[in-house]
Amino acid sequence: MSQFWSNIVHDLTPYIPGEQPKTNNLVKLNTNENPYPPSPKAIKAIQGATDEALRLYPDPNSDILKQSITDYYHLENNQVFVGNGSDEVLAHTFQALLKHDKPLLFPDISYSFYPVYCGLYGLDYKTIPLNASFEIGVDDYHQDNGGIIFPNPNAPTGIGLPLESIENLLQQNPSSVVVVDEAYIDFGGTSAVPLINTYPNLLVVQTISKSRSLAGLRVGFAMGHPDLIQGLVRVKDSFNSYPLDRLATLGAAAAMGDKAYFTDICNRVINTRAKLTLQLEALGFEVLPSQANFVFIQHPKHRAENLAQALRDNNIIVRHFKAPRIDNYLRITVGTETECEQLIQALNTIIIKA
Amino acid sequence: MSQFWSNIVHDLTPYIPGEQPKTNNLVKLNTNENPYPPSPKAIKAIQGATDEALRLYPDPNSDILKQSITDYYHLENNQVFVGNGSDEVLAHTFQALLKHDKPLLFPDISYSFYPVYCGLYGLDYKTIPLNASFEIGVDDYHQDNGGIIFPNPNAPTGIGLPLESIENLLQQNPSSVVVVDEAYIDFGGTSAVPLINTYPNLLVVQTISKSRSLAGLRVGFAMGHPDLIQGLVRVKDSFNSYPLDRLATLGAAAAMGDKAYFTDICNRVINTRAKLTLQLEALGFEVLPSQANFVFIQHPKHRAENLAQALRDNNIIVRHFKAPRIDNYLRITVGTETECEQLIQALNTIIIKA
Repeated sequence: MSQFWSNIVHDLTPYIPGEQPKTNNLVKLNTNENPYPPSPKAIKAIQGATDEALRLYPDPNSDILKQSITDYYHLENNQVFVGNGSDEVLAHTFQALLKHDKPLLFPDISYSFYPVYCGLYGLDYKTIPLNASFEIGVDDYHQDNGGIIFPNPNAPTGIGLPLESIENLLQQNPSSVVVVDEAYIDFGGTSAVPLINTYPNLLVVQTISKSRSLAGLRVGFAMGHPDLIQGLVRVKDSFNSYPLDRLATLGAAAAMGDKAYFTDICNRVINTRAKLTLQLEALGFEVLPSQANFVFIQHPKHRAENLAQALRDNNIIVRHFKAPRIDNYLRITVGTETECEQLIQALNTIIIKA
Repeated sequence: MSQFWSNIVHDLTPYIPGEQPKTNNLVKLNTNENPYPPSPKAIKAIQGATDEALRLYPDPNSDILKQSITDYYHLENNQVFVGNGSDEVLAHTFQALLKHDKPLLFPDISYSFYPVYCGLYGLDYKTIPLNASFEIGVDDYHQDNGGIIFPNPNAPTGIGLPLESIENLLQQNPSSVVVVDEAYIDFGGTSAVPLINTYPNLLVVQTISKSRSLAGLRVGFAMGHPDLIQGLVRVKDSFNSYPLDRLATLGAAAAMGDKAYFTDICNRVINTRAKLTLQLEALGFEVLPSQANFVFIQHPKHRAENLAQALRDNNIIVRHFKAPRIDNYLRITVGTETECEQLIQALNTIIIKA
């Protein structure tokens, strides 16, 4: 507390990200990073740009990166916005497109940064409970609102929403911006990007942190009608002219361009997830059906908090959220085959011992 | 205009950065980049980190970078905040520390992003005229205010404010946060950093874009009392957990650590500025006394706008601001000796022809 803080700072409840340990001796399954390296083409692009041109400002519009996204999704330049990680893109979205007189709606179990953004920008919001199976019911959103946002697949459940449901939601809410946060879409979900030409109220947000294995580079993007993109650009240009540095811009563009590598590592994660799911079920876990690069699990006989601690004692870190309805669940990132084997072995020992 | 925009988006007047041309055949003296390459140690640090660890999130606190700053300025970790360019650091500062009931004060001629931030966060502000010599008069700020901000040296004038004047200002305004924006301090000014241990209301903002020649990497930082830093951290952690990527963090840290190289390139810029000033004066220009890596000049017989266009026709770009009191001035970055020779030759021809 300080007399020098603005009122808003006193009232904030900042987001707490998953632990980023500074040692390398841990099996790190807590923050949904991709277990495979980034595309060699991304590495090469960064190496090629690490030169004296770093003395110059980057392109404030990151057009090379936008081009790689429009190529991938067959869009126009004015349908794409890029930012310093999808968290920055989301922050601008809350301020530019979701702050209206009526409350923003999002699921009660969802990305825990959403209420934080509401605090930062003074948005009124209302959470809509997932059903008993932790699924989003789109009809529950058929009520007065100033906007709707949800991850698809949802986090931390991993459960996906079919495209028909998203289309229903868009049709039911033509006066509201509907933001689909597709951080995990490439691991088995169906992207809503093809709908942006039909629905001017749809914004789709993605990131290169997960499926492109570049969490260390901080690049996210949004796709939607040019009017929505222009709203984001106006906020960005009133906040930071150059949010993406030269290396991130070029590395991300190269990663977007390497479709073969991307498809391969996504498939590997999907295959490992299927195997891991069976192994966890064999140990007695309930595993929610995941379309993401993580699984959300609970055990009928073991408290999640205790399991997380026991895994940590075995140098394996996973994520446990102390939140209503999900405090007996663990969110575990799908690692390499080897890492998942280590996890299963550790859980096996822990469960037998207990 | 769009029905989907929040009210604030409709009212914004975004900042317009200087042109970043996509061709290399121009003498680029328009955005105050350093004409010399970044430290070889920074390049090496980035190269060393361009590997598969990019799949992992960076340290959300960028402690390695903070360490390099605390080493350089002999501070504690909790006196330093880092962000994605000093523009992001300033944005958080406006929201966290400068938004109060009373108006923010800044010079009428100053960094033109300040009123944009006020628009973005709904701050009331009042501009204080520089005197006839374009100097800041600190006694003019002795009035009710919710905060004070100014660049030192000032932009785009290049004129520095002595440390005694800053100390007077701090003593006259003990209940206000005073932000000294030192983007250009290393080219001849005296930093206010040593005062932060004495004045809990002082925040000093710096960048690696200019004196460390890394505009392409997007890293800025703020230094002040731990309470001020904590206010910035609370906003940052409510906006983007990981604003600095792995490469920017390590490259910036290495640049901060290479004091010998830094001192050398700063001195080269200072020496070129002295020579350039004499040459411009010989051509009849009035050159304001600059402590920055640019000069702010006007000619009694030639309109700045025309000169800027004529230089552009000679493939030299400089900055002209269409703003009250300064619309007959040009801001010209101090380039290499060769670039400045090209500038002088071009101006010589233009002035003789006219």
